[in-house]
Amino acid sequence: MKRVMLTVAYDGTNYHGWQLQPNAVTVEGVLNKALSALFGEEIKVIGASRTDTGVHALGNIAVFDTSAKMPAEKISYALNQRLPEDIRIQASKEVASDFHPRRQDSRKTYEYKILNTEFPIPTYRLYSHFTYVPLDVEKMNEAAQYFKGEHDFKSFCSADSAADTTVRTIYDISVKKSGDMIAVRVTGSGFLYNMVRIIAGTLIEVGRGNMQASQIPEIIEARERSKAGPTAPACGLTLVSYEYP
Amino acid sequence: MKRVMLTVAYDGTNYHGWQLQPNAVTVEGVLNKALSALFGEEIKVIGASRTDTGVHALGNIAVFDTSAKMPAEKISYALNQRLPEDIRIQASKEVASDFHPRRQDSRKTYEYKILNTEFPIPTYRLYSHFTYVPLDVEKMNEAAQYFKGEHDFKSFCSADSAADTTVRTIYDISVKKSGDMIAVRVTGSGFLYNMVRIIAGTLIEVGRGNMQASQIPEIIEARERSKAGPTAPACGLTLVSYEYP
Repeated sequence: MKRVMLTVAYDGTNYHGWQLQPNAVTVEGVLNKALSALFGEEIKVIGASRTDTGVHALGNIAVFDTSAKMPAEKISYALNQRLPEDIRIQASKEVASDFHPRRQDSRKTYEYKILNTEFPIPTYRLYSHFTYVPLDVEKMNEAAQYFKGEHDFKSFCSADSAADTTVRTIYDISVKKSGDMIAVRVTGSGFLYNMVRIIAGTLIEVGRGNMQASQIPEIIEARERSKAGPTAPACGLTLVSYEYP
Repeated sequence: MKRVMLTVAYDGTNYHGWQLQPNAVTVEGVLNKALSALFGEEIKVIGASRTDTGVHALGNIAVFDTSAKMPAEKISYALNQRLPEDIRIQASKEVASDFHPRRQDSRKTYEYKILNTEFPIPTYRLYSHFTYVPLDVEKMNEAAQYFKGEHDFKSFCSADSAADTTVRTIYDISVKKSGDMIAVRVTGSGFLYNMVRIIAGTLIEVGRGNMQASQIPEIIEARERSKAGPTAPACGLTLVSYEYP
């Protein structure tokens, strides 16, 4: 028996998110089915991030146990043959039998992309959020810096979250523009439900001039969801990577 | 009566190319239908580039004549309301009544994107060509420079082309890598049928080491399609812009 870790990339457009659901197509469901068919035994993956409907990933993580003899490194090739083209394993390797992908000491990086042009650009529509209102990227980046460090992010968490604690640490965050595309990139110890999308929605409000960068500390302190900006749409969000020490 | 020029962006994934066809959905057909409905008169656009099935555009050009009173600049907004989200007008303006979008003195820029990673990345799959064979970008760029200037590009033209002359001028061409994405960007006086895709396919052969950069001049001189590399797949190609003096 060995435990195998998969690095999973997907286009979230056509999935009801990561997590297994009885009556909807999810990334976890498709992975379980493909792995079970590949090894001829029932396999259930444990995922790192339960991304929402429409959210994309370059490097989500899943682990599973198998008694199959196939070398762990070869599983990526074999599994990709059985997956639809909007899911692709980027790497597979053996890990310790007690390795859990939602370890507290992992670092997660997300990117939220905003296309800021007069009209939407069709080839970018599935992987970015569009807004024609000109955004002040410098002010957005100034505001973003207030999120750095350990904070109670209750104001940036959807009301229906079941998290034990709303304290999280953000190690790094930046807002950069390349051409007409603005990218909010954030690395942290972990993220609450919808946290990155609410941070992005709040930074967009700052970029539009509806909020001031200097208001961010008081929004954090309020610990009240209604003080922050709206939840930005799912299609703009990509889970970039998980790093384990 | 006025002549209006549209700058048209589209995701070519779901279209049988630009050109009107009786039994297939094309960008030209969808534009004609939306414009005719908008103005309540039959409108037929003249397109600049008849892009192939699956090819994308950031700035293809179409012109049409109308007696409608709507200011030309407002047409982009009104038309976008009636178009599917994979076609978006980027600009509309009035031009001279004899303006033709396939003028000889225009400069066209295309970009061909190649994702060069071990495994495909799902969120890039619709807008780039994937190859896992490591490509030598420096050699590709070296080879590309031989295309600059006025040449007979018969070796880089699909056999079924009906062009009068196969002489074209390439003003600028470069091959650059950003992350795992290689972009071949080429600006010219005009391009023969499949010319950019055959240039891209040939540069990929150079990048793989199957051809030498120094072979390009003899491939051009041969004036024979079979001497060049294969036609690279349509999804990697984007018509970036048309410029008129």
